[in-house]
Amino acid sequence: MKAEIIAVGSELLTPDRLDTNSLFLTEELNGIGIEVVRKTVVGDNRDLLAEAFRDALQRVPLIIASGGLGPTDDDLTRETVADLLGRKLRHNEEILRHIEGRFRSMGRDMPAVNARQAMVPEGAEILRNPRGTAPGLWLEDSGHLIALLPGPPRELKPLFREEVVPRLERHVSGARLHHREIRVTGLGESHVEQRILPIYSRYPEVQTTILAAPGETQIHLRVWTADGAHAKKTLDDIVQSFHIALGDRIFSEDGRGLEQVVADLLALNQATIAAAESCTGGLLAQRLTSIAGSSSYFLGGVVCYSNELKTAWADVPPKMILARGAVSTEVAVALAEGIRRRVGATFGVGITGVAGPAGGSEEKPVGTVHVALTHASGTKERAMRFPGDREMIRWQASQLALDLVRVHFLYNGQNAAAPSPKRA
Amino acid sequence: MKAEIIAVGSELLTPDRLDTNSLFLTEELNGIGIEVVRKTVVGDNRDLLAEAFRDALQRVPLIIASGGLGPTDDDLTRETVADLLGRKLRHNEEILRHIEGRFRSMGRDMPAVNARQAMVPEGAEILRNPRGTAPGLWLEDSGHLIALLPGPPRELKPLFREEVVPRLERHVSGARLHHREIRVTGLGESHVEQRILPIYSRYPEVQTTILAAPGETQIHLRVWTADGAHAKKTLDDIVQSFHIALGDRIFSEDGRGLEQVVADLLALNQATIAAAESCTGGLLAQRLTSIAGSSSYFLGGVVCYSNELKTAWADVPPKMILARGAVSTEVAVALAEGIRRRVGATFGVGITGVAGPAGGSEEKPVGTVHVALTHASGTKERAMRFPGDREMIRWQASQLALDLVRVHFLYNGQNAAAPSPKRA
Repeated sequence: MKAEIIAVGSELLTPDRLDTNSLFLTEELNGIGIEVVRKTVVGDNRDLLAEAFRDALQRVPLIIASGGLGPTDDDLTRETVADLLGRKLRHNEEILRHIEGRFRSMGRDMPAVNARQAMVPEGAEILRNPRGTAPGLWLEDSGHLIALLPGPPRELKPLFREEVVPRLERHVSGARLHHREIRVTGLGESHVEQRILPIYSRYPEVQTTILAAPGETQIHLRVWTADGAHAKKTLDDIVQSFHIALGDRIFSEDGRGLEQVVADLLALNQATIAAAESCTGGLLAQRLTSIAGSSSYFLGGVVCYSNELKTAWADVPPKMILARGAVSTEVAVALAEGIRRRVGATFGVGITGVAGPAGGSEEKPVGTVHVALTHASGTKERAMRFPGDREMIRWQASQLALDLVRVHFLYNGQNAAAPSPKRA
Repeated sequence: MKAEIIAVGSELLTPDRLDTNSLFLTEELNGIGIEVVRKTVVGDNRDLLAEAFRDALQRVPLIIASGGLGPTDDDLTRETVADLLGRKLRHNEEILRHIEGRFRSMGRDMPAVNARQAMVPEGAEILRNPRGTAPGLWLEDSGHLIALLPGPPRELKPLFREEVVPRLERHVSGARLHHREIRVTGLGESHVEQRILPIYSRYPEVQTTILAAPGETQIHLRVWTADGAHAKKTLDDIVQSFHIALGDRIFSEDGRGLEQVVADLLALNQATIAAAESCTGGLLAQRLTSIAGSSSYFLGGVVCYSNELKTAWADVPPKMILARGAVSTEVAVALAEGIRRRVGATFGVGITGVAGPAGGSEEKPVGTVHVALTHASGTKERAMRFPGDREMIRWQASQLALDLVRVHFLYNGQNAAAPSPKRA
């Protein structure tokens, strides 16, 4: 089956908002054998919106639309699609009660405008949306299937998986997309390419994409086939060869980010961690605590920008700072050891560097970062010069710190080879 | 003039990467009077890529393409466009030296694959890209203008502004897009809409878009006209009325985020700040230090997840935690006062709450957050129950903390009304 995706919202034609939904929807649709043949972004304008739906209805049997279901005057999807299909909008009491309930649970009254979200085209099925006010809508009309979904990704994604996919599966069969994602850190895109090109070029049926992100490189492998067993074997073979080519630089094969990988290793090994950060300014702590359940392994951390606080909070000797400079291997190690001792954690991390744009010198240019990891078995430190701007340098520094923890478990942790938990 | 934007990269047809560039490009093009009539995303496939360019050349005089200029085997834009225009690719020594120099400055050798990036179609102008290895390319062919730009936004954006806009301005005249962005915090989308609908509905020529983001609402006003003075007056009138309707809830009119607004206020007033965070886990520190020059106002902060560290680092009395619970107004105030005293900062911030998904109770459900701000003149505290998931709750908590600082200056700071610095 072929589908088109229509993303509704003038904000999606500006630099202020991205249509992230169409990408998620493409992958989901491919996964159940539906091909996306066009993606359209259209603004909050009744005529242009009607034209986009009318054209798509002439081309394909399935339209997935996102956005334009909000409470405000410029949310026009409900009205436009109802008009186009010649259906009346009817007030739905159940939806209204759901919306009122959501506002009440936040201790607020429902603004009058939200009543618009309880209007439903005749004959539409309601796709329940426990995470937001606007429900999704499912319409079948003259052999066409139309799903209207709320724009916010955190509402659209679960709603699509729970309500739309089961409805679509009744209508499709055949080839599926099979996908693997390998994530690598500590090796640039070009170097990854050089190592794996001889491998993946032997599999022309597999689409291989290499993506560079700050502090990591991602390799995507995709095969489109009805033969799931063959796809699995092919992808397994490639990934096995990648392990030989890339060694311990692979940190994830299941979509987990590095903070999640490290969080899982810490939890599995009942280890705890504390951080003393200078140039990353709390980014490492923030990433470690972004994972649900982080209080089991993250006890605390300090952000010590000033030299005085490096001494007060992590016992870095003032003489050391004077002699070696705040950005130095010695201070990174002292930060790591100091915070570990103060907090009583299994691991201590110290990070100091020059994130820029100012503060660089000939000897210590912008991008210079020292990271140390300490543990009962000893201390490791790494000095790097990272490229990019302030944000990239800080991210790469936090990535390196996380990777030191990962590698520690790889070579020292008894449970490091245990199976990965599923993606959230 | 009409333009099409082509984003090249199979990764843009997956959930792994977004085409952010087309949105930036749309706004920039509109600003110089060029209308974007279509946006296409196409994968790394020579035939599909050639088809996309061929079709676009038949429809419009201007094509802006991003991506596919990298060093790897699946970067096909250079070759495809050269083929299509019947031009040979030639090796360019200057580009090669630039690429080698970039690797050398990082202390690395240039991988052999990168030499591909020095290939240039005959007759193309080179658009210098000091931020990356691949240069942009500018082609004029039979009345058509084609710009090929590198995919990474941090390379594409400045390169477009510095190299492409001046070339385009020779070719265009007429209407321009005039844009204002008003950012509001502490009021939901529906409430903002209710207050400003009577205002903006009086200006049908102005396109008004209201966007909800965690912890803030953004209002975009856009007018498309050749009469710049009239556009300015209209937008000024609307914004003035918004100030009456929304009062101190407006925190930005120039695109600055709340952390930048607060950073500017702190720097202007030569004030310093320190934070003791629990549920936000370093997010506030990270946001405050994401701004260049943050060491002038941010001295340090602690992330005290455990009760023991709340006592050790911010002098929160253990008895208070026992009596009131770690998530309480009293503990937020004690965190703020303790960290301010310890660091000797102008402001102390304390944040404690339940970010979830676990850890909630009937009395203190997930989303409960207490934030306190202390200063020589006294202490303010706010208790909230935020909706959403862990990430949203943490973001909204950091947003509230920043807003307390902003509001402090609004009513107490002598210099709070000083002009805003320019955007970075």
